[in-house]
Amino acid sequence: MNGLFISFEGPDGAGKSSMLQQLVPVLEAHSDHSVVLTREPGGSPIAEQIRHVILDSNNTDMAASTEALLYAAARAQHLHDVIRPALRQGKIVLSDRYVDSSIAYQGAGRELGTDAVAAINRFATNGTMPQLTVYVDVPPAVGIARIQHYRAQPEDRLEEAGAAFHDRVRAAYQALAHQEQQRIVTVDGTQPIQTVADQAWAIIQQRFPAFFNI
Amino acid sequence: MNGLFISFEGPDGAGKSSMLQQLVPVLEAHSDHSVVLTREPGGSPIAEQIRHVILDSNNTDMAASTEALLYAAARAQHLHDVIRPALRQGKIVLSDRYVDSSIAYQGAGRELGTDAVAAINRFATNGTMPQLTVYVDVPPAVGIARIQHYRAQPEDRLEEAGAAFHDRVRAAYQALAHQEQQRIVTVDGTQPIQTVADQAWAIIQQRFPAFFNI
Repeated sequence: MNGLFISFEGPDGAGKSSMLQQLVPVLEAHSDHSVVLTREPGGSPIAEQIRHVILDSNNTDMAASTEALLYAAARAQHLHDVIRPALRQGKIVLSDRYVDSSIAYQGAGRELGTDAVAAINRFATNGTMPQLTVYVDVPPAVGIARIQHYRAQPEDRLEEAGAAFHDRVRAAYQALAHQEQQRIVTVDGTQPIQTVADQAWAIIQQRFPAFFNI
Repeated sequence: MNGLFISFEGPDGAGKSSMLQQLVPVLEAHSDHSVVLTREPGGSPIAEQIRHVILDSNNTDMAASTEALLYAAARAQHLHDVIRPALRQGKIVLSDRYVDSSIAYQGAGRELGTDAVAAINRFATNGTMPQLTVYVDVPPAVGIARIQHYRAQPEDRLEEAGAAFHDRVRAAYQALAHQEQQRIVTVDGTQPIQTVADQAWAIIQQRFPAFFNI
C-alpha cells in the first residue's frame, strides 16, 4: 500500500469535522496525491446501513457488546470499500474516527474492556492501522457545550450517556496517546479551529515530507 | 440461570426447522417449563435489523469479516433480549443456529479461521453456551436439493456460495462434534423428519430428566 492513512480522534464537539474542512484543501494544494476524506461509522453503502442500526435512537436497549461488534463490522466494510482501495492507489486517506474511537467509547466508556475491544478490532482491520492519528483533546464539558450550541436535533444514543462515561472516554484516549506516542499526536482542541488545523498540518508535513511539495 | 438451553445446527435443508416444529409440542406436553423457540440471525427487533443487513442479497460485496462481526452482533443482542431472560425464568430455550454456525460458515466456509471466529463469539456471548447442541448432519447435496425443491424465492448470499464452501462447512461441523462430544450430538438428517425429531427427543429427555415428566 503506497498511500498515507491518517485518522482523527476525539469527542464530538472537539472540532474534528471543522478542522478537516480546513485541512483538506491545504493538503490538496501541497500534494500530487489525491486526498480522500471519510468518516466512521459509515463511509460506504453497507457500512452506512450498519451506521443506521447503531445510531437509531429507537434502539435504546442495544447491548454494549452488540454496539461494539457493529462498529467493528462497519469498520471492516469501510476498510474493504474505501480505505484499502485508496491506499493501494497511493492516495492520502483522512478518516474522521477509527479504531481508537471504539477502544475509548466501547472499551472504556461502555466498560467492555479496552483489551477486548482492541482484539475484535484487530479481527476487523486485519492489522491495518493509520501511520498517524491526530487526537483532538478537549474536556468533556467543552465538547458537550459545543454540540448543544450547534445542534437542533435530539441527542443520539452516545450523547445521552452521562458525565462519568465521557470522563472514561477522555482518560482512555489520553492513555492510548501515552502508550502509542509514535502513532498518536495530541493537539489542544480548546484552541481556535484554525490554530488546531495549522498544528495538524505542521505535524503531517513534518512526518511525511515525501507526500508534500513544500 | 435455571433454564435449559439447546441449540440446533446443520446446513439449510437439513430439516432443522421442520424437526423443531415437531419437537416443540412434544417438549411442551412433557414439561412444566415453558418452551421458547427462537432462531439466528435475528430473534429480537434489533437483531432482526442486523439480520436484514446480513441477508440482503443486494449486499453482494460484503467483506467476510463484516459478515462474521454482524452475525456476532446479532447473537449478542439475541442473548440479551431473548435467551438470557428466558433462561433466568427457568424456560427451555431452543435456538435454530448459534455459535457453531458462525464457526462453520464464517470460520471454515469463508476461511476466516475457526479460532478467530470462535474468539469474537466469546466476546459476543460472554461464554454463554448451550447445555446441548443437536447437529443434524446431511451431505451438502441433500440439503441444497431440498432447498431448491421447497423454495420459490431467489437464493440468499450464503446459498450462492459454491460446493467447496459447503464441504468446508460440513467438515467444520463434524470437527466441532468430535472436539466437543459432551455438548454436541450428531443425528443423521437423511432420515425422515419424524425419525430425526424422535431421536432428538430421546437424547434431550435422557440428558435432562429433571426438566421432563416422563
